[in-house]
Order: sequence, then C-alpha cells, then structure tokens
Amino acid sequence: MSAPAGGPWARRRRIAIGVEYDGGAYSGWQAQPHARSIQAVLEAALARVADAPVALVCAGRTDAGVHAHEQVAHFDTRAVRSPRAWLLGANTYLGADVSVRWVHAVPDHFHARYSALSRTYRYLILNRGARSALAAGRALLVHQPLDITAMQAGAAQLLGEHDFSAFRSAQCQSRSPVRVLQRLAIERSGEWVTIEASANAFLHHMARNLVGVLLAIGLHRTAPEAARLQLRSRVRDPRTVTAAAAGLYLWRVHYPPPFALPIDPAADSAIMGPALPGRPQIS
Amino acid sequence: MSAPAGGPWARRRRIAIGVEYDGGAYSGWQAQPHARSIQAVLEAALARVADAPVALVCAGRTDAGVHAHEQVAHFDTRAVRSPRAWLLGANTYLGADVSVRWVHAVPDHFHARYSALSRTYRYLILNRGARSALAAGRALLVHQPLDITAMQAGAAQLLGEHDFSAFRSAQCQSRSPVRVLQRLAIERSGEWVTIEASANAFLHHMARNLVGVLLAIGLHRTAPEAARLQLRSRVRDPRTVTAAAAGLYLWRVHYPPPFALPIDPAADSAIMGPALPGRPQIS
Repeated sequence: MSAPAGGPWARRRRIAIGVEYDGGAYSGWQAQPHARSIQAVLEAALARVADAPVALVCAGRTDAGVHAHEQVAHFDTRAVRSPRAWLLGANTYLGADVSVRWVHAVPDHFHARYSALSRTYRYLILNRGARSALAAGRALLVHQPLDITAMQAGAAQLLGEHDFSAFRSAQCQSRSPVRVLQRLAIERSGEWVTIEASANAFLHHMARNLVGVLLAIGLHRTAPEAARLQLRSRVRDPRTVTAAAAGLYLWRVHYPPPFALPIDPAADSAIMGPALPGRPQIS
Repeated sequence: MSAPAGGPWARRRRIAIGVEYDGGAYSGWQAQPHARSIQAVLEAALARVADAPVALVCAGRTDAGVHAHEQVAHFDTRAVRSPRAWLLGANTYLGADVSVRWVHAVPDHFHARYSALSRTYRYLILNRGARSALAAGRALLVHQPLDITAMQAGAAQLLGEHDFSAFRSAQCQSRSPVRVLQRLAIERSGEWVTIEASANAFLHHMARNLVGVLLAIGLHRTAPEAARLQLRSRVRDPRTVTAAAAGLYLWRVHYPPPFALPIDPAADSAIMGPALPGRPQIS
C-alpha cells in the first residue's frame, strides 16, 4: 500500500493564497452568522478541495462592499494537493465574484497577518457629471471637480508615524492607534482620480476616513490644513464622511522577499490605478 | 399664457446621446419582443423624461453580452428639456448597468448611424492561469500564453478595404460585405491583452470573428498567414471561433468634427485599453 495522500497521518502544511474579489455582494471578509462573507465562501470552497475543514487567516479584513485586487490569506491542511489543484478546485467552487489568483506553499512561520510588512489600498473616484454603468459599484462618483493639488497638500500632512485615532471608527478594536502611513498619493487621469495609501497596517475605516478628509479638501469644503488639525485632535470629526466602500480596493500586501509569494508584479508598479473600461492611464 | 414647453406645437428637435453599458444582462442593443434590450430600457427611460414615446437610432447595434464604453444614438422629440435634465432624468430611470454619458442637441441632418465616419471596438483578454473576479463578464480569460507578435503579423494582413465575408455571421443582413479596416492593433501589458479594431463599419460578428482568428494565431493553432487566406476565401472557416461577447466593447464612434459631440476625449488616446482593477497601462 502506498502512503495516504493527506489524512490524519500526513504532515500539516501551511498554504498561502492570493484572493481577488468584488465585495459588493458580501458582508465583508470576516465570517459572521447570518451573513455572506468572503471568508466563509472561500473556506467552503477550499474545504471541498481538501475534503476537510479549512480555517483562513487573512492579511487585512475588508469591510462590507470593499473589493480586493489581491488579498492574502493562509490556512493549514493535511490534504496533499498541488498548487494548481488547489487553485482550479477552489475557483470551480467559488462564484464569479471571488477568485483565487495563486496558491503557494509557505513555511510554518509564515502568517498572512503578522508576516505582512505593509498593506496598500487604492481608492477609485470617477470625477464627472454623469454616472458610469461600467464603474457601477467599483468607484465613487464625485460630480463636482476635485482640486487634486489641495488634496495632495492635505495628504502630505498625514504621512509618517502618528496616532490615527481621528481616522478610526468607533468600533475599531486595535490596541494601539499608532500607524505608519508610508504613502498617500493622489493622481488624476482625465475623469479618474486614484488615491493610493500604504501603511504598516490600517485601523478600522482608516483608509476610507483618510479618503473622506481628502475629498472634503478636494471639494474646498475645508482647507488642506484640516488634515493635520484632525490628525492632531485625535478625535473623529463627525463632519468628515467615511468614503463609500465601493471605491476601495485592498490592492496588495507586502511580505519579506524570502517568502517568494507570487504577488502580481504589476500591482507594484508606479502606475496608480487603471481600473475600468475607459479608465485612462497615469504615466 | 406662456408658450407650452413641448407638446404637439413645439418644434421637433434631434438629440444625440452617448451611452455606456454592461451588456451582460441584455439581449443586445436592438429591441426585441420577450427580451431585455439596451434600446428598450433607454427608450423607456427617455420617454419618462419626455413624457412621450421616444425612438432611438444607434451607431452600431451590439450583440447580446457586448458592452459599450461609448455608444451613440439619436432621437427626435418635441419635449423641451435641457441636456442636463435629459441626462439626470434618464439616468434616474435606468438600472446601474446602463448610463447616459452626455446629451447634445444636433442638427436634423445628424444621424447616429449614417453620419458616423467610423467605429472603434476594443476586445479585452486576460491572459493568465487563474480567472479574475473583478474582470468577470468583462474580459475573455485565455489560459495559454498568447504570442502577440504572431497576432500582430496576422492583423497586418487584414488591414484595408476588403470583402470581409469570411468574418461575417450567417445572419448578417448587410448588402455589401466590403468594409475598410483602418486599424487592428494588439498590445500586451502584463497579463492583459487588448485588441483595438477600427473600421468604417462592421459586419455582424466581424469584430469577434477577427478576434477569433487572431486568438488562433496567438495560440499557434494556425499561422499568421491564415488571416490572409481566410480573408481571400470569402468563406467563414467553421474552425475559427467567434470570440465571446463578454470581452467586446463598442469603444467609440467617430463623427465629423462640426457636430461637436462631447465624445470622451480619453477614449481617443493612443493608450489601448485599461479596463479593470489591476489592468496595467500601456505606454
């Protein structure tokens, strides 16, 4: 008899996956009772491939309606499958709006959340007078012209290591409100405005609250200095909106190179956010 | 009493509109009994704004599942509304997957179909091993690597004025199979391949059949010379597939400049087809 492929005697292995999704129909990443979550549908699909339960840990839990260009998660399993078998199997059992991009065996000390060096989010804004059928649910429509220069001036005041309490939600469960905001770039290309934010980690609603204050600045409802004043206040300004979930994408997660994860190399380019048919390019 | 705004005594005016849609849920442009068409939902929305029936004529009837970045259509009406009132009104009555981009009063001799000098279609291919949640229904997934150089060699053989009988469907009702193919460009940017085709007009299924032969060439199932041989045969080769509708976009329609239609200027750029989150750019 040959050795069993998997089963209770097989060595437990850690597997990392890259995941893409349109979050529009989901309650968010995290599995919750009575709600359809990305985590639950992925775990169910992987469990069918593994023929055993699978529990996922992700790099960054996204909220309801938030998309992922490339989320990263890991799970442990005794099932022995090739990366391609995991990939094609899981994608067979998933709906059209969730897909596994890649599957990669990782050492046991890899952790999708704790090994991540930083996260990058992109926020996509369509800045024109008429709504877009092809961007529906995938971008925020802003009718009034956005002043990108003012937004960039505001963004510059938020960079670095700060107490971001003013940009976290009341529900945020992080022990520390201190984060390092490494990049907060705003670029316009025709009707499209993309905001890219990179930080070691994000507080709950932090990306969307940063976009909220930048939108208020871009619409001249407040001065660029409002960004610094809000940051220093360490108190959430109730007048600043949390930007809609539909414009937000978890874009990529950065890990130490030795893990050699097959992260989409194009996601790392200087180009900011081509996103939808008609979305022109930023050079 | 003031003059009635619209009504039977008002002058009939011709109005042109730019339309964007995700064709995934539609039977195509053309209104048909027992089918949900783009034309029917647009006419119904405009009729509610006009408070009178509206009949649309479009530049190019798209098939079931084909998208439009910028379709153009016209209608005649005695209703007096500002362009903005037409735009916002129609978009209020349309579902999320169809939107009016602009509304422009045109002279009576403008005709969305007959005034058009040429049409540009784009076909979007995701060339990678795993399907994409964000591109679902918006691009064709091709697992095997595409040889872009071979595709370009094949495309070059199709340019110019030809009898395109080999690339029309059996249902095509055009009196003449002669068309002028002005441009057939293929570009790769990472995982994405975009094919752009411009012609004075397209026969039924012509854009998707051109893509079909280019795909066969790109996959090395046939040589680049097959493009010329098929063209010269004037007979449809049953081995060549009609590429899936989901990858095709009516990208823009070109009219004589005096009509001054507010066509998306970015659609005219040299950049080929950024389309979805993660779609990198072609410089």
